[in-house]
Amino acid sequence: MTQFNMAENAKLVRKASRIVAQLTTSQKNHLLTTMAQAIEDASDVIITENAKDIQAGKDKGLSDAMLDRLLLTKQRIVDIADAIREIVTLADPVGNIANLALRPNGMQVGKMRIPLGVIAMIYESRPNVTAEAAALCIKSGNAVILRGGSEAIYSNVALANCLHQVLENQGIDKNIVSVIPDTSREIINELLKQRDSIDLVIPRGGEGLIRYVTENSQIPVIQHFKGVCHLYIDKYADLTKAVNILVNGKTQRPSACNSIETLLIHQEIVEEFLPLAAKALADSAQVKIHACEKSLPYFKDATLATTDDYHAEYLAQEIAVKIVDSFNDGLDHINEYSSDHTEVIVSQDTSRTQQFVRAINSSVVMINASSRFSDGGQLGLGSEIGISTSKLHAYGPMGLSSLTTEKFVVIGDGQVRD
Amino acid sequence: MTQFNMAENAKLVRKASRIVAQLTTSQKNHLLTTMAQAIEDASDVIITENAKDIQAGKDKGLSDAMLDRLLLTKQRIVDIADAIREIVTLADPVGNIANLALRPNGMQVGKMRIPLGVIAMIYESRPNVTAEAAALCIKSGNAVILRGGSEAIYSNVALANCLHQVLENQGIDKNIVSVIPDTSREIINELLKQRDSIDLVIPRGGEGLIRYVTENSQIPVIQHFKGVCHLYIDKYADLTKAVNILVNGKTQRPSACNSIETLLIHQEIVEEFLPLAAKALADSAQVKIHACEKSLPYFKDATLATTDDYHAEYLAQEIAVKIVDSFNDGLDHINEYSSDHTEVIVSQDTSRTQQFVRAINSSVVMINASSRFSDGGQLGLGSEIGISTSKLHAYGPMGLSSLTTEKFVVIGDGQVRD
Repeated sequence: MTQFNMAENAKLVRKASRIVAQLTTSQKNHLLTTMAQAIEDASDVIITENAKDIQAGKDKGLSDAMLDRLLLTKQRIVDIADAIREIVTLADPVGNIANLALRPNGMQVGKMRIPLGVIAMIYESRPNVTAEAAALCIKSGNAVILRGGSEAIYSNVALANCLHQVLENQGIDKNIVSVIPDTSREIINELLKQRDSIDLVIPRGGEGLIRYVTENSQIPVIQHFKGVCHLYIDKYADLTKAVNILVNGKTQRPSACNSIETLLIHQEIVEEFLPLAAKALADSAQVKIHACEKSLPYFKDATLATTDDYHAEYLAQEIAVKIVDSFNDGLDHINEYSSDHTEVIVSQDTSRTQQFVRAINSSVVMINASSRFSDGGQLGLGSEIGISTSKLHAYGPMGLSSLTTEKFVVIGDGQVRD
Repeated sequence: MTQFNMAENAKLVRKASRIVAQLTTSQKNHLLTTMAQAIEDASDVIITENAKDIQAGKDKGLSDAMLDRLLLTKQRIVDIADAIREIVTLADPVGNIANLALRPNGMQVGKMRIPLGVIAMIYESRPNVTAEAAALCIKSGNAVILRGGSEAIYSNVALANCLHQVLENQGIDKNIVSVIPDTSREIINELLKQRDSIDLVIPRGGEGLIRYVTENSQIPVIQHFKGVCHLYIDKYADLTKAVNILVNGKTQRPSACNSIETLLIHQEIVEEFLPLAAKALADSAQVKIHACEKSLPYFKDATLATTDDYHAEYLAQEIAVKIVDSFNDGLDHINEYSSDHTEVIVSQDTSRTQQFVRAINSSVVMINASSRFSDGGQLGLGSEIGISTSKLHAYGPMGLSSLTTEKFVVIGDGQVRD
């Protein structure tokens, strides 16, 4: 392989971005539908290439969980194609003008949604990201640079070949989707300098990758470090709702970033609530408990919680528990330990719930609902390209519209300024 | 002066940001009104301090234009106070939920506007920025770190003292407005590393300052490098509108970034339009012309335009002129040389104007109106804190709402996920 020239590649993608930005919704949908079919039709080839990644992964001694995330089967390839077809059904945000206001001098002023331009995804393992991120970018009128990890390189290139074949057949510049074949760290450094060509970088992977990209990028980065989600049970909580929301939030899919990691309980409801909670957590999934001194006696086999536990994103059947003296102490704990992901209050008291919503500025704030709903699909955004826990540009789950921006459109009839 | 600890200061401002975020609109308006009055009342002190900056500027040999930008007079101090009072009248974006949608399971999902948190302004000369930026940040619920240039340090500190006095009298943490007394470059480097405390950096000044901040910041930066605004006169242009929009765009205030720097003319309208344009530009302000070969004969004393002229932000009574063969050649020229600020088409043809709006993705795209309207106040945003020519977070003139973000608010009644 000749050496990959990142700057040159980024310029080609920038040029191609003008083409995808001008495609109509029908053209984009037709393109995506054809891509979905092409991926299904190529499943034998994709599985053969994927087998090389799996073999290399075994040779490197990857864990079974890692290998499973890498693996592509017939069914998983159908799932990828279906995910693209799902994106076809989403509304196209590009070109919309929400409101065209009339200025005193008769000019109309509005803001039109437009694509960002070029989006770079830097991600690890799961090869489905290659196809789904490409589809979300195309649907929102963006060109995309995909830099997957070395462990999935054969699978990623096989998927990219399908997409490029479709683009070629339809006579569209294939640089609107660019898969970087170089999996070195140096190429990431090069990528992060191309601020004249790339508008946004979205890293998906472990905290190390995201920190590295944030600290080295000259291009804006969507950050999602971790999800330390809090559930606060108020003294005015409905106990049944509280137990259900706790069990669902902690045990339904503990490996997800929107799972509950810390349970806070108002001291005046401890007597009624904690015995029910302890039983429910033990019954449903034998959740490991890290309890504060006061709550420790309510659990069997709990360990004493440390400050580290309140910072922990367990991503497992494990939870930190703390009794707080007051509503305000609950807010203070959340403000101190929050990862700006998702926080939930369970309370029937409307003043408390209102105050909670105003005082907590995490990206998703919930009243009487499971944190597991903190997800683009569940919140009604359609497919999700990531979750931002930093406030700039997008905050919280990101759908298609987070891949766009707005320009001002002014419609005059000869107006000049006095 | 003891050494200024930037990290420590930023942490104090971050802490204070929670207080300003929770103030009601009435509280913020009362605070700002009192600040405006305090500045007016302190005008003697401010003028005395400003005189030190002016003297230092003279000693350093600053130009008369620079000294004029630094100078504060009684009237200019009243203007600063009035600018703050104007901000009081603006609608408060914080707390608004644009739309609360119902999900199939009965949960309500909306997005609430919230302050960004801590905003850092890095700016040069004009001391009025100190007061106006502070007021815009307070009104939008943000804390602010102000780092003005050494040439205005006495004026900036005098203004900050007024603001701090008001905060102290009202019992509000004075760290919601922090003026950095250290004017070294090192302190900027320190500031740009405080990403745990600062949410957004807005540099205002020359291209050198903005590039420096962009290349060295770990915090998101609002970029505004320059305004190379284009005016395209289509073959279907109304000639009277075209001449008015040209003269207004170029000569009304040539030092503004929304002035026209390049005039493009469709070849089929050259004969009718250029003689009128040449006369109007000569009559109104003796504009210096850099013309392409074909347009050169239409002007007296024009020089031949080079590629540099098409990149130039003259900020003076000076313009580049080019005849284009077709509408598409006009689009291509703009896409190549655009600074993503403002572009204008003059045409009576609705297909052409529509196509122009779709094909040009600068932050402000105008039909039949003067580029001089590309300004927060003129577009209806109220006071402007800056103009972004990069697409992330904000694009184009930025008002109060660009100093906020949106969090998701979910209102349930015990829902859990299946």
